[in-house]
Amino acid sequence: DMANIAKKVSWSGRGDDRGERTPLLNGDEEVKYNRQVPDTDSPLRRSTTTLSCPQMCLAYKSGFRCLEIRRWVICGLIGFLTGLIACMIDIAVEKLAGYKYFAVKLNIEKYTELGGLSISLILWAVLNSAFVMFGAIAVAFVEPIAAGSGIPQIKCFLNGVKIPRVVRLKTLVIKVFGVICSVAGGLAVGKEGPMIHSGAVVAAGVSQGRSTSLKKDFKIFEYFRRDTEKRDFVSAGAAAGVSAAFGAPVGGVLFSLEEGASFWNQMLTWRIFFASMVSTFTLNFFLSIYHGKPGELSSPGLINFGRFDSDSVQYNLYEIPLFIIMGALGGVLGALFNIINYWLTIFRIRYIHRPCLQVMEAMLVAAVTATVSFAMIYFSNDCQPLGQDNTEEYPLQLFCADGEYNSMATAFFNTPERSVRSLFHNPPGTYNPVTLGVFTLAYFFLAVWTYGLTVSAGVFIPSLLIGAAWGRLFGILLSFIISCIIWADPGKYALIGAAAQLGGIVRMTLSLTVILVEATGNVTYGFPIMLVLMTAKIVGDYFIEGLYDIHIKLQSVPFLHSDAPPTSHWLTAREVMSSPVTCFNRVEKVGRIVDVLSNTSTIHNGFPVVAHTSENDEHISVLIKSKTCLASSRLSQRKLQLKDFRDAYPRFPPIQSIHVSQDERECMMDLTEFMNPTPYTVPQETSLPRVFKLFRALGLRHLVVVDNENRVVGLVTRKDLARYHVGKDGLEELHLAQT
Amino acid sequence: DMANIAKKVSWSGRGDDRGERTPLLNGDEEVKYNRQVPDTDSPLRRSTTTLSCPQMCLAYKSGFRCLEIRRWVICGLIGFLTGLIACMIDIAVEKLAGYKYFAVKLNIEKYTELGGLSISLILWAVLNSAFVMFGAIAVAFVEPIAAGSGIPQIKCFLNGVKIPRVVRLKTLVIKVFGVICSVAGGLAVGKEGPMIHSGAVVAAGVSQGRSTSLKKDFKIFEYFRRDTEKRDFVSAGAAAGVSAAFGAPVGGVLFSLEEGASFWNQMLTWRIFFASMVSTFTLNFFLSIYHGKPGELSSPGLINFGRFDSDSVQYNLYEIPLFIIMGALGGVLGALFNIINYWLTIFRIRYIHRPCLQVMEAMLVAAVTATVSFAMIYFSNDCQPLGQDNTEEYPLQLFCADGEYNSMATAFFNTPERSVRSLFHNPPGTYNPVTLGVFTLAYFFLAVWTYGLTVSAGVFIPSLLIGAAWGRLFGILLSFIISCIIWADPGKYALIGAAAQLGGIVRMTLSLTVILVEATGNVTYGFPIMLVLMTAKIVGDYFIEGLYDIHIKLQSVPFLHSDAPPTSHWLTAREVMSSPVTCFNRVEKVGRIVDVLSNTSTIHNGFPVVAHTSENDEHISVLIKSKTCLASSRLSQRKLQLKDFRDAYPRFPPIQSIHVSQDERECMMDLTEFMNPTPYTVPQETSLPRVFKLFRALGLRHLVVVDNENRVVGLVTRKDLARYHVGKDGLEELHLAQT
Repeated sequence: DMANIAKKVSWSGRGDDRGERTPLLNGDEEVKYNRQVPDTDSPLRRSTTTLSCPQMCLAYKSGFRCLEIRRWVICGLIGFLTGLIACMIDIAVEKLAGYKYFAVKLNIEKYTELGGLSISLILWAVLNSAFVMFGAIAVAFVEPIAAGSGIPQIKCFLNGVKIPRVVRLKTLVIKVFGVICSVAGGLAVGKEGPMIHSGAVVAAGVSQGRSTSLKKDFKIFEYFRRDTEKRDFVSAGAAAGVSAAFGAPVGGVLFSLEEGASFWNQMLTWRIFFASMVSTFTLNFFLSIYHGKPGELSSPGLINFGRFDSDSVQYNLYEIPLFIIMGALGGVLGALFNIINYWLTIFRIRYIHRPCLQVMEAMLVAAVTATVSFAMIYFSNDCQPLGQDNTEEYPLQLFCADGEYNSMATAFFNTPERSVRSLFHNPPGTYNPVTLGVFTLAYFFLAVWTYGLTVSAGVFIPSLLIGAAWGRLFGILLSFIISCIIWADPGKYALIGAAAQLGGIVRMTLSLTVILVEATGNVTYGFPIMLVLMTAKIVGDYFIEGLYDIHIKLQSVPFLHSDAPPTSHWLTAREVMSSPVTCFNRVEKVGRIVDVLSNTSTIHNGFPVVAHTSENDEHISVLIKSKTCLASSRLSQRKLQLKDFRDAYPRFPPIQSIHVSQDERECMMDLTEFMNPTPYTVPQETSLPRVFKLFRALGLRHLVVVDNENRVVGLVTRKDLARYHVGKDGLEELHLAQT
Repeated sequence: DMANIAKKVSWSGRGDDRGERTPLLNGDEEVKYNRQVPDTDSPLRRSTTTLSCPQMCLAYKSGFRCLEIRRWVICGLIGFLTGLIACMIDIAVEKLAGYKYFAVKLNIEKYTELGGLSISLILWAVLNSAFVMFGAIAVAFVEPIAAGSGIPQIKCFLNGVKIPRVVRLKTLVIKVFGVICSVAGGLAVGKEGPMIHSGAVVAAGVSQGRSTSLKKDFKIFEYFRRDTEKRDFVSAGAAAGVSAAFGAPVGGVLFSLEEGASFWNQMLTWRIFFASMVSTFTLNFFLSIYHGKPGELSSPGLINFGRFDSDSVQYNLYEIPLFIIMGALGGVLGALFNIINYWLTIFRIRYIHRPCLQVMEAMLVAAVTATVSFAMIYFSNDCQPLGQDNTEEYPLQLFCADGEYNSMATAFFNTPERSVRSLFHNPPGTYNPVTLGVFTLAYFFLAVWTYGLTVSAGVFIPSLLIGAAWGRLFGILLSFIISCIIWADPGKYALIGAAAQLGGIVRMTLSLTVILVEATGNVTYGFPIMLVLMTAKIVGDYFIEGLYDIHIKLQSVPFLHSDAPPTSHWLTAREVMSSPVTCFNRVEKVGRIVDVLSNTSTIHNGFPVVAHTSENDEHISVLIKSKTCLASSRLSQRKLQLKDFRDAYPRFPPIQSIHVSQDERECMMDLTEFMNPTPYTVPQETSLPRVFKLFRALGLRHLVVVDNENRVVGLVTRKDLARYHVGKDGLEELHLAQT
């Protein structure tokens, strides 16, 4: 009878369900990993016979509180260490770049009078290349995952995609060293993306209480050794990174939420905010000591765009259409940037994959950057009088008259952050329009070329710089066209242009608005910045995706976007799911388990455990491949405990490393302990958006699809969902890599 | 055979599932409400035979885009109207209070010399009582739901609890009128809570494209006439309200998220942010016109706490412990406030429930407020020299020497917002410590007494004022104790005190930090404010819940908190669910449907539709009571269409109003059209936290519990989940009202 052998299904997300956590009794380490069914022998469950209910609840509550306090302590530590690292990067970059510019400036001044400036050029190019070489060697030979800004990797991690070695200590060290080298080496890069990545690595390390790179286990925070908890802490770390980089704690929280969160968890958000706040605070505290004014905690984060004072620089209603036009321009330029960078990346993947080639390319870019900068400074004769305001750290006189300096050098002979600030705040008339135009063009192509090099480097600051340059140019031209120049303050247009360009390249919206508002310290510009970012995103999306999404797509990872594709309503779970599904019985032969787990062609890593209704037992669950491997390895030795999983996390031994004798193969294994008895299931008629929502909202990795008799007919994995994507001609299927 | 008649279950959230929406073809109004199963005759489904896939997708995509654009337009409108209303309230209050204070001031000045100041007192008390009388009459007799701040009601609405008449136009009118009267009437109230409520009402009205109060249907935005969409727009409205009230658009977004959101939806958040931004912008625009400087858009929201300039007022590391102590003090004082107000509210519920009594109480409070203020001004002899800065709008000389003014009058003879600002920013030495102490004490009790009166009034500003007063006192005492008075700027301590007191009363965390940071325009204070709010919350929670939660609890509504109670892991769906469940067959006799729907003792409003496996059909769904009523009413007349549901939403006719003849009772009705074929179900062993998470994350109202044979064994409703609550002795069950 068909109905008699109907298989019933239940299922285990096992640590993949965000938000729900099993609190532990104090120090009770033998507690089962998952919530137990009433009939199994959990020590907690057993304790109900000895403790009265209120007592038990109190003990339970204090355990819960203790965990919560530990989470707060970890977030505080994450914020502190991230702030410290950001501070270190900042000081190192300032020092190194300072020495470099000082040396080059002396050299230039010497040879301006003597003639033979080509020696200065060579000095500059060699210094740049040397810095970049060290950074590129470290990245290319030691830890290639540390290349780039790290934001695409963190986006993937927070999305639930596992990319190996992203959050390891070694990556952090190389990232920090690499970014110091590449910024000091004068490349068109920023240090903000790497800071966000650093925050994430710090978070992963601190929350696990050990480092695999150092082979050191502090035996603390063992409860947090699981995917859900780790991901939560990594979002806090990323937020702390943003907060340190831009002095934008709220922006950091929103960044983490925009990139990582699906389920809105109030306590988690609050902890993320705490980490962000501690990070800014730490950064300010140590920088105040470094600058010799200890205890003055009022300066914001690293990128100080300078305060836009409401009284002097304000905008009017009739400027808003102009801002929107600038937003559209930013979208177009951003899309152009992304398209060129996309082709360049494809080229790099095909032809520049050997580490030494990568180092050489990086050095070439460094030398070219120095040469272009030098040439532009040399050939421009835009002299400006030396002002009283010390925005110029290294004013180059070159061929200018005494008391004047070369204006092109302001933009090139400086760290990019300082250049952005001077574009925002220097008084009208500081820059010649031609200088600005040429600078924009040159810097645009340099930045496109630079992003994707095998160096650790972010794209935020170069984008802002390009935007600020053409924005300021826009403002200047505007005041040429219309004679009323009172309201067309070029600094204001530089800010809007910077927002437009950055928005056009990265396509972030909410968090970017808040970050820019916090970094400029003026909430008034929130509305125009928001309009500009929206326009830039809409216009840019018409041509190509955002830069980070392009790079994520090129890695072919199963990245889940925040919503199901709009035209996917016709697809049902039946069409999306992977089938046939390999199932286990509740009591299964060891040989079969080993065979199934060793079979690399299986399309899923979780296996439903099914039971026949004729038996009086119908709990069914899915096992995660790697964990089962461990389970099998210990099979013949002793009873497996929670601790074993924690110690092995996150690198469980592969099944191939386990030797199972022929005798052992014939043993039977009870899978009850490794499954969750109450899984989420959906009927096969469920629409794709509904399945998608379940995945996103509950953070699932596998979802069992059942038919009307509750038989397993398929399994939906992240990859099944990530495959669908809206292209030019409607829904398309992507090809995804195995991860 | 038992297995043969095993019932299979599927289920419809019908519009209760957040996030998933069925896009419509342009202008196609006959499309079915729910996504159709493949075998039913949807016009969209049929069109696949005539359109090729890319064409269909494009049409579909443009329909989706069109909807999305409409949502943006609605959010823009919500922001605009909310800003406009806030502007109106502000101007009206300023004008009325201005006239009142001017009249009283003239009178006092006249009688100070003549003697007989009791006449001034009577004038003041009568003016106050008159204003308050109008407001209280409107609230008590016309729309009692407009009483109070409205934030508890909005919290409930966003949580998914339906409270009648909360978002109706009539409520808005009374709320606006009421708040103008009560603020102008000199009560210890603020206008911020009512502004948030106003925003929510505006949102509900605009998004539905009609007003029931006005009996006017504009026949627009009909797609949005359902719970999910309406709730999304109401969150945008609440955010716009916060944004207008505090000039804090980001704070507004976070407020909405903290109170309302469960599933993090990026596009929704972005739209909420847009509404907030438009609201601040509109407010600034119209206020700039009102103040005669049209186009100057740089002033922030209504509550301008004045910019805390980083350079002059900064904090040091060693002040942080002091701030934490202040936070704890705020927690204790806030708990005291809440406890007194709780008893007062109980007293009011028992004894003051007749409208005329309520009006009389409000008038009494107004008169007492005036008397206390007058007495305190009269008996204080704290004279201060008139400064150059015009913080004093109505300086009262009273018995002071020429060129001096009475300092107590600054605090009492002013709208509370202005008093807060002067406490924050007046230079050290402006206030006498004794004056501040007495003021704190008097205002504390006045504010406790006032909150919960039958007037439309918020508690934010009084809380801030109490806190600012004792905070400033704290700062002054500090500089007495330690002679080094340089860093103990009393304005800084006033800010921290205000945050502590407000946090202790309302217990908001993330959003409040951001609101205060935005309102003071200084991100530097973010960290101390956060620490203070956390301390205040932890200390306060030890004694009693937050003020809003107390008032929500007193209403006995099934309010779902953000997480399941920590000790609820032992409870399973089996123990929580309501059972037995009334089920329908797919084709059911009309008589039975009417009987079931008329039976008011049914514990649930959704009904699973079950089918037997012997028939070849197993789609099963839950019907919402009210909608089925409508369905039945149209039964014999014509085929029911989507439009009928939309027209009736949200007030469907009660089943009692429908006459069904005996012949009709014998008819059979096919329920296929009114059900969702792919519901969410859980096995009965599922733990309460897991069920809870599913409810919160997906915004469900009903969840079917099935056994291992997939038979319906129970139904979990919001009320079943809201019932459990952690008390002193572990888990407690609450008694909830029928809503």
